[in-house]
Amino acid sequence: MTDAPEVGELTPPDRTLMGPGPSDVHPRVLRAMSTPLVGHLDPSFVDIMQEVQELLRYTFRTDNEWTIPVSGTGSASMEAAIGNMVEPGETMLVPTNGYFGDRMASMARRAGGEVVTVDAPWGKPLDTAAVQDAFDEHQPDVFGFVHAETSTGVKQPNVPELTDIAHSHDAYVIADTVTSLGGVELEVDDWGIDVAYSGPQKCLSCPPGASPLTLNDRAMDKVLSREAEPRSWYLDISLLEGYWGDERAYHHTAPVTNVYALREALRLVAEEGIEERWDRHLHVAGALKAAAEAMGLGLNPDDEFWLPSLNAVLVPDGVDAGAAIDYLLEQYDLEIAGGLGALSGDIFRIGCMGHSARPQNVAFLATALGEALEAQGADVDVEAGLGAMRDALNR
Amino acid sequence: MTDAPEVGELTPPDRTLMGPGPSDVHPRVLRAMSTPLVGHLDPSFVDIMQEVQELLRYTFRTDNEWTIPVSGTGSASMEAAIGNMVEPGETMLVPTNGYFGDRMASMARRAGGEVVTVDAPWGKPLDTAAVQDAFDEHQPDVFGFVHAETSTGVKQPNVPELTDIAHSHDAYVIADTVTSLGGVELEVDDWGIDVAYSGPQKCLSCPPGASPLTLNDRAMDKVLSREAEPRSWYLDISLLEGYWGDERAYHHTAPVTNVYALREALRLVAEEGIEERWDRHLHVAGALKAAAEAMGLGLNPDDEFWLPSLNAVLVPDGVDAGAAIDYLLEQYDLEIAGGLGALSGDIFRIGCMGHSARPQNVAFLATALGEALEAQGADVDVEAGLGAMRDALNR
Repeated sequence: MTDAPEVGELTPPDRTLMGPGPSDVHPRVLRAMSTPLVGHLDPSFVDIMQEVQELLRYTFRTDNEWTIPVSGTGSASMEAAIGNMVEPGETMLVPTNGYFGDRMASMARRAGGEVVTVDAPWGKPLDTAAVQDAFDEHQPDVFGFVHAETSTGVKQPNVPELTDIAHSHDAYVIADTVTSLGGVELEVDDWGIDVAYSGPQKCLSCPPGASPLTLNDRAMDKVLSREAEPRSWYLDISLLEGYWGDERAYHHTAPVTNVYALREALRLVAEEGIEERWDRHLHVAGALKAAAEAMGLGLNPDDEFWLPSLNAVLVPDGVDAGAAIDYLLEQYDLEIAGGLGALSGDIFRIGCMGHSARPQNVAFLATALGEALEAQGADVDVEAGLGAMRDALNR
Repeated sequence: MTDAPEVGELTPPDRTLMGPGPSDVHPRVLRAMSTPLVGHLDPSFVDIMQEVQELLRYTFRTDNEWTIPVSGTGSASMEAAIGNMVEPGETMLVPTNGYFGDRMASMARRAGGEVVTVDAPWGKPLDTAAVQDAFDEHQPDVFGFVHAETSTGVKQPNVPELTDIAHSHDAYVIADTVTSLGGVELEVDDWGIDVAYSGPQKCLSCPPGASPLTLNDRAMDKVLSREAEPRSWYLDISLLEGYWGDERAYHHTAPVTNVYALREALRLVAEEGIEERWDRHLHVAGALKAAAEAMGLGLNPDDEFWLPSLNAVLVPDGVDAGAAIDYLLEQYDLEIAGGLGALSGDIFRIGCMGHSARPQNVAFLATALGEALEAQGADVDVEAGLGAMRDALNR
């Protein structure tokens, strides 16, 4: 048999993470990750589970009993939401204005559903009238939308209007809040969202591995009265309910450490206050936006749809986006990302999330990005950018 | 809106984990968990991914190119295996001799498959002739078996005979190696196993969250030539191949930290040597077995099917298993578990896995278990047990 591979000590580079996620993790959360484990059925873990659920409710702004971390990364909580809410033969309405609507569509089809779409260009939010028309035409059973589109940097406004339309058609609403939870105003209950899923590695600044999901009673009634079992055992919410609910019955081995980390990340949210946290993201990302604009760089979305947690900065003429991104990584250990799909090559995606949404990060980012663009001969006014950033931070 | 919940510092009890998993985590692995993250598409993470794959191949004893950690706990790698290998309308043969055969059946049905069974009592392995008969009768497309049954403490012998039967019927073999990988002899290639899945939190002593999976070329050809898409997007191996294979394309955000931890846990395997590690488990668990027997406690499986990593010790007459388990947790911070399903109340399940498979753990366990049983008035000879344990450890 082969010899043991010779693999050295773990020595990853020391990056600053300002891409679309993961974001930088707070030292307290890293420390929680190194806590020795208890078993997933330990009586003491039951208390921890309850605390995490309570903290998640606070962060989602919901009283939903059924609020848990799913044992996987954000796409796992996404598929748990869609795979349980969509029954074979039902119709799901999904948006076409970003990367994650396509993912919703693929998951809905695999769940046995029919998919219909409501269209908007990449970089624009969904229009209320278009959603109304799509409902009238298709009468979908489930409507999915993306509150904070990580691929385009667009925040969906008018959410209560969208959920009203859905409910007047007896449909259920699933919201993708991966890049908004804990960073951008989100009111699950007040806005009438039936199901919301998220990831921990964006505005919560927690390592990926346990991903928030919440369902209201109406959605949970549907899940628990399905005719056919969901097509995934691992993500079957009725079974997860046995573990996270009153019964505390064994389903699968929960990722204990990731739950510890999520608890600490959510404690930081509670200590700061959720509204104060939204304000911080607005303030700090606002300085980033001001810097970009004063340098002469536009943002892709209109101001009214600007998403503080993910800034889609237009790549200036003559600049190779990939080369600039590589420059930042190699010269500064600084991660940002380029565009996806229809916006590939056209935008930089600069995250301002959680522990990365700090003045020092933005100052670093603006300085380094200015240099990277100047290195390619772009016509940018870095000094004006840094000045505008300082003004915005001091406001 | 509600006030922020007041949740205190994370202060879990300091348990010694000798149940069915998770097992105690080595300090080096805990330290890896607290390493600041790089992004899941960082060039440096590509190297880490390759190292993890190489170390997994070594541990599985396979040359399978397609060897990865799945982003979830062991049940996720299990469902990835079954959900991708079983197409709608195909037949899967599963065992009935333990808890995890039932789980296989549920996953196969959700994948659209028909399920047929090969029977053996709980606490016994599958008989070669019974598997032959089941193949002749049902002609299944896929055959799943459990190499190390965590619910019964039984090790399946005669694996090469079982895979020969399957292959002579043009079927594929999926092995559940959750409680054997890294602790009990397992030869994926030499034994003709087409697909094997495992968990990190058993004999690898790594926190749950990223779970080993390997497929040989024959199995991967089947996965990549499916007529229908797998029913889970998150666990679709053809999409995971885009990320873990040469393309390194974004699929979902990998649980970077759990991959770091798995890398460190597998480095410990490589440093020790896989055969030496199997020997250690035999030696240390052998001392545990000797202690139990000399105390007057039987083990449930026959000696030839004994599973060193999970010892199913018969509960003596007059002892309330649950009370003894609680005693160990409360008096000693020591976790063991009771039986599941058909063996509920009849056995203790005592793990001896990875970093928990050490002489000091067994000495502690034997002492504490003896005391817990004496506290209930059981007729056990603790002194003889401890003597036999010492003899076995010194052998």
